Amino acid sequence: MMIASTANRRVKEVAALTKKARYRNEEGVFVVEGPRMFSEVPKDRLVHVYATEKFLRENGSAGLAAGNGLVDTVTDEVLRTMSDTQTPQGVLAVVKQYRYTLSDILSRPEPALLMVLETIQDPGNLGTILRAGEGAGVTGVIMDSHTADIYSPKVIRSTMGSIFRVPFYRADDLAAVMEEMKRAGIRLAAAHLQGSVEYDTEDYTGPVGFLIGNEAAGLSRQAADMADVRVRIPMLGQVESLNAAVASSILMYETARQRRHMAGR
Amino acid sequence: MMIASTANRRVKEVAALTKKARYRNEEGVFVVEGPRMFSEVPKDRLVHVYATEKFLRENGSAGLAAGNGLVDTVTDEVLRTMSDTQTPQGVLAVVKQYRYTLSDILSRPEPALLMVLETIQDPGNLGTILRAGEGAGVTGVIMDSHTADIYSPKVIRSTMGSIFRVPFYRADDLAAVMEEMKRAGIRLAAAHLQGSVEYDTEDYTGPVGFLIGNEAAGLSRQAADMADVRVRIPMLGQVESLNAAVASSILMYETARQRRHMAGR
Repeated sequence: MMIASTANRRVKEVAALTKKARYRNEEGVFVVEGPRMFSEVPKDRLVHVYATEKFLRENGSAGLAAGNGLVDTVTDEVLRTMSDTQTPQGVLAVVKQYRYTLSDILSRPEPALLMVLETIQDPGNLGTILRAGEGAGVTGVIMDSHTADIYSPKVIRSTMGSIFRVPFYRADDLAAVMEEMKRAGIRLAAAHLQGSVEYDTEDYTGPVGFLIGNEAAGLSRQAADMADVRVRIPMLGQVESLNAAVASSILMYETARQRRHMAGR
Repeated sequence: MMIASTANRRVKEVAALTKKARYRNEEGVFVVEGPRMFSEVPKDRLVHVYATEKFLRENGSAGLAAGNGLVDTVTDEVLRTMSDTQTPQGVLAVVKQYRYTLSDILSRPEPALLMVLETIQDPGNLGTILRAGEGAGVTGVIMDSHTADIYSPKVIRSTMGSIFRVPFYRADDLAAVMEEMKRAGIRLAAAHLQGSVEYDTEDYTGPVGFLIGNEAAGLSRQAADMADVRVRIPMLGQVESLNAAVASSILMYETARQRRHMAGR
């Protein structure tokens, strides 16, 4: 079917999915844009695909969704109306949300490398933590309910596809989740400007979870108090703090470095 | 003087400085917004300050620019017209650009830790590299002429003040600058997806410069060929690359880590 009118009911629905976290969560889906991200969507999660004629001509509609009726053709104008970007790149997909449980994440066989995010508000930071996290080997990302919506278009884009592969969990009660992590034998290390030890003097080869606080306010007192250790990333000059994604990446890659060296590589 | 009209000639001039790199460079100035960034401007670089009455009442005009005629009062609407943001925070300053030379940067006494950026296009990445760079102890940031304009409001914001403290140099001919770095005894390490060695097996305690390529295309063949070594940041999962600011931070902080340990701390 060809959708040519921006007044079409489904165009409005997709536009609402792009814009509104509540509507995404009610429907249990999110929106993925552009050919690169689209190519990484696991096929069993595809709910619907909207593509321009040009995109279908150049990419072949059969390969898109196995010709099983999931694809509608749209005009550039319709795609722009649905999209979060000014210049959408020919394809947009509605994708099923993930439903990881905390025990999915805590029961994975490899030693935990978890990021625990408290009120990370910049979508780019959240997405970048997932992307660098996959590279460093995180076993999951846990967020409090004040963290940016992981399904927002900006987060999705900045994950560069890691959204489809890194398990994550949004905690209504972050303190309770941290208690459960501790009971599971996970050592909690808080990234903290007043940390008592330099981050690279700690051993992260065992199960570890890093607590990362809000971009402006840092970690709450309550979260910092629950940590087994507070670690400090040394800063020279007059820098007051590091970007949350940068600090996270330094800690995750220090962990990966220690684990590679332990494995004798 | 109180400026209340958005049609005022100086309002238009500042708005143009905010928007246009060419105009900034012709005038040799840039624009800094908000109380936090304003508080970090070195006083001898201040050209002019525009602040709302409320800001002056709450912060004291004397402390702003030593009462030497640099401050004009503006309305909220005028400030919004001048500003890059939708909700400016009461103060905006026009600041003199820096004029570091390559030899300023290469003649610093401490062992070089230089970032060499080839066509980094995201302003947030550039700003974040300066910010994390100051924290890690970089001695300078060198950019080619296709890298984002360092004086754009988004770069300035994301440096969180490091723009005032980290020396930088924009090279018309990056290859010539790399040759000069090599003659100065600086080892060039290219961050490269096909690097032959893992980044943490190299010794960065001596003078080093890291080559960082464009977000999408990576390093040019020419730049990669000039490197003394190509280093790879290991990536697990299906990650194809890391964010440029994240990769830079991992390399800079690995260098800082090695230098701290060498110093016996």
